[in-house]
Amino acid sequence: MDNAAALSFRHRLYVQLDPAAWQQQGLSLTNRFICALIVASIAFAILETEPSLETEFEDVFSLLEWLLTAAFIAEYVARLWVCTENPKYEGWLGRLRYAYSPIAIVDLIALTPALLSIAGSEVFVLRLFRLVRILRLARLGPFSRAMSHIGAALRSRRYNLTLLLLIVSSVFLYLIEGNVQPNAFGSIPRAMWWSIATLTTVGYGDVFPITPMGRVVAGITAVLGIGMIALPTGILAAAFSDAIQRDKNN
Amino acid sequence: MDNAAALSFRHRLYVQLDPAAWQQQGLSLTNRFICALIVASIAFAILETEPSLETEFEDVFSLLEWLLTAAFIAEYVARLWVCTENPKYEGWLGRLRYAYSPIAIVDLIALTPALLSIAGSEVFVLRLFRLVRILRLARLGPFSRAMSHIGAALRSRRYNLTLLLLIVSSVFLYLIEGNVQPNAFGSIPRAMWWSIATLTTVGYGDVFPITPMGRVVAGITAVLGIGMIALPTGILAAAFSDAIQRDKNN
Amino acid sequence: MDNAAALSFRHRLYVQLDPAAWQQQGLSLTNRFICALIVASIAFAILETEPSLETEFEDVFSLLEWLLTAAFIAEYVARLWVCTENPKYEGWLGRLRYAYSPIAIVDLIALTPALLSIAGSEVFVLRLFRLVRILRLARLGPFSRAMSHIGAALRSRRYNLTLLLLIVSSVFLYLIEGNVQPNAFGSIPRAMWWSIATLTTVGYGDVFPITPMGRVVAGITAVLGIGMIALPTGILAAAFSDAIQRDKNN
Amino acid sequence: MDNAAALSFRHRLYVQLDPAAWQQQGLSLTNRFICALIVASIAFAILETEPSLETEFEDVFSLLEWLLTAAFIAEYVARLWVCTENPKYEGWLGRLRYAYSPIAIVDLIALTPALLSIAGSEVFVLRLFRLVRILRLARLGPFSRAMSHIGAALRSRRYNLTLLLLIVSSVFLYLIEGNVQPNAFGSIPRAMWWSIATLTTVGYGDVFPITPMGRVVAGITAVLGIGMIALPTGILAAAFSDAIQRDKNN
Repeated sequence: MDNAAALSFRHRLYVQLDPAAWQQQGLSLTNRFICALIVASIAFAILETEPSLETEFEDVFSLLEWLLTAAFIAEYVARLWVCTENPKYEGWLGRLRYAYSPIAIVDLIALTPALLSIAGSEVFVLRLFRLVRILRLARLGPFSRAMSHIGAALRSRRYNLTLLLLIVSSVFLYLIEGNVQPNAFGSIPRAMWWSIATLTTVGYGDVFPITPMGRVVAGITAVLGIGMIALPTGILAAAFSDAIQRDKNN
Repeated sequence: MDNAAALSFRHRLYVQLDPAAWQQQGLSLTNRFICALIVASIAFAILETEPSLETEFEDVFSLLEWLLTAAFIAEYVARLWVCTENPKYEGWLGRLRYAYSPIAIVDLIALTPALLSIAGSEVFVLRLFRLVRILRLARLGPFSRAMSHIGAALRSRRYNLTLLLLIVSSVFLYLIEGNVQPNAFGSIPRAMWWSIATLTTVGYGDVFPITPMGRVVAGITAVLGIGMIALPTGILAAAFSDAIQRDKNN
Repeated sequence: MDNAAALSFRHRLYVQLDPAAWQQQGLSLTNRFICALIVASIAFAILETEPSLETEFEDVFSLLEWLLTAAFIAEYVARLWVCTENPKYEGWLGRLRYAYSPIAIVDLIALTPALLSIAGSEVFVLRLFRLVRILRLARLGPFSRAMSHIGAALRSRRYNLTLLLLIVSSVFLYLIEGNVQPNAFGSIPRAMWWSIATLTTVGYGDVFPITPMGRVVAGITAVLGIGMIALPTGILAAAFSDAIQRDKNN
Repeated sequence: MDNAAALSFRHRLYVQLDPAAWQQQGLSLTNRFICALIVASIAFAILETEPSLETEFEDVFSLLEWLLTAAFIAEYVARLWVCTENPKYEGWLGRLRYAYSPIAIVDLIALTPALLSIAGSEVFVLRLFRLVRILRLARLGPFSRAMSHIGAALRSRRYNLTLLLLIVSSVFLYLIEGNVQPNAFGSIPRAMWWSIATLTTVGYGDVFPITPMGRVVAGITAVLGIGMIALPTGILAAAFSDAIQRDKNN
């Protein structure tokens, strides 16, 4: 492979990797695949906190762990290689500046748990840092198209916010009450059962925090959960109002 | 009865049975009666899962079972006889094609539990397949009129969706947790008590799933249940907004 | 007092008693006082079902009972005397027709518990028939003004509906589960604690129906309770939408 | 310092202290600091009711108590000194009239618990009177700007109302059920856990009032809590409706 071909390949890879350089609608195929890997890695990090699953599927988990880590290392190296295509990061100094950019540091931090190979569940939580990256892609992708289709944009944003709220509140209560109430908050999937009941304001009352700190987080979760009701209702109300208006004019 | 009279009768029956061939508003008298039979058969399939009712009303249940089965067989045969009136299913080949259409297969599958006469409660659930057919009629009937009266259409759709959500979530939890918690989910009517408390976000907490699978279904039910609050609120907001506007212009 | 004065007094009393004959806005002073008496009598009928209150305040209760009964008999006789002023009920035949009108019969039925002086708590529930009369007045009074001030009309209607829902659902559960769970539903005020928790979808779960019939009523109450959230939200949304619109035009 | 300088200083202090005399947007730096002190003093009064905290941080609490009291005495004296700058309170008679104004009396009453140095928790509740003052400032500050930015005004008002509802309902249940259920309502922070679960309609059911009076307050809280859902939903619906409208016109 001669130099020109390498440069041309680097440029094409850069366009695939940087959502800002992608001219077409949505995300590039490569970024979609990375998104899927990130989602899988988050789901995997959440499931790994469940003791009953971890003992049963230990082999599958460590295999998946190595595959995901390899993929993310490859991605990190590729991004470092192509970053100079971006006018902001030209030359070797630009590459260094890219390596110190918040996104690259997050990428590196997200890799540490796997590289350190420490099996403590507290370090596994670090893998949730990858959430920061999916937020970046999500922001650049669908949100730039939001201006033309307000309804669709709001709806997609609602699901993102809800999912984020669900995961973040579960992680908090897993960290705060995991040791106090192992049956209720001993893993993130278990804490999610409490979180969904609180965010939807169903509140069965089979599981609830008992520590002051846990109750503060639960209170904030419950107040934010009202947004889960307010957002779709507001969107529907506006849509119906618009439909009635159109119905009248025709 | 000569051939012409038979053909004329077949045509009139076809118009009665096919909602698409019915020129007037709403549903034909025959289809309304079939709708009522389907609703009765679903209600009956739900009640039959309740052990305390089944032992008490065993005779009434088996009599109703035979009457409903006879009616649905008659309907199936009639639909097979008149289907050739539809340009899509002309000739004997058309009739065969109709017999392999999804709707006709669903009709036949829905009949199997009664024909097989197996008393296992798992097979009784098959009778819920009839729900698929009422959805088909419901779709063709009121929904085609929806364009002119958005408010009414949305309101009727809301009740349909709510009822569907109530039945489907109850059936799921009956199947998943029926054996684990017989008092709470041992029959579909019992599971409906949980379902209504979850969908309205009341969440008394006297009954709740304890298996991971049941909790996933319950979480989805709770999130969808928010639509039960969002839909009427949005409709009311749009209607009030419209009323204020009209009040000002006059 | 000569005849002309009697007739003139009768006419003035008629204008005071019949909301339809009242030319000014709202209700006449007499009808407002009757409204207050009806509200007091309903509150009183509700409180009387609470055993702990009844034994303590027996004397106060029987005194109030006699005063209210006397007032309602006076009102009934007065309405019967003045009804001939209404063109619909002219002459002695008209008076007889008035006595057989639904409103007059309800008036009479509402008086029977006090006249029969039977102390059974089941008969006390009959006094809730008076609710029918306050609905009549409420319908004629504020609702006729509703056309000009939609917001105010909807808001007042909301409180009426909510109160009605609260009382009706409490009475139903008191009748259905009063004997099964005396601590939770042994009196209407006790049942109201359950009712308010259900209608606001809070659902603490300390009190809930356990009989199938009670659960059906509770399910209907929970579904209707969503209207308590949807109505004010819809009104607010429409009002805000209107305010934004006005803000823009100025 | 000569007299003119004193008068000029008094005038500048008056402009700093009286929100009505402040010409610029929002609140003056001095009033912002007083606001922060009031918020701190309320938070502090709430936390002090928690027995477990009081025994542990007794020294910190008494130090903070003295600092806050000194600051509020200084503020009271300053307001009394500068009030004559207001045309409404000119001369010594005006100063006397100011001292008898509701605001100044509230200021004085709010100081009594600290001055009396009585350690009974019932008297500590008096410090919540300071809430009345922050409401006054809040009313004058952001609400005057509300006309131009309805959305922002409603949103800020919503948080104020919610916080007020949270504190007031917690204080009520602390006073009513504090002795009956010390674990659940034995301090205001504990009662706030119940209050947040009720206002958001989550209703876990781990904590609920058992006395008739407590249930009446809880019922009112639950009904008012619906406003917490209705307000943001209405605001969002109006905002989305407006966004769709703008999207169409462009």
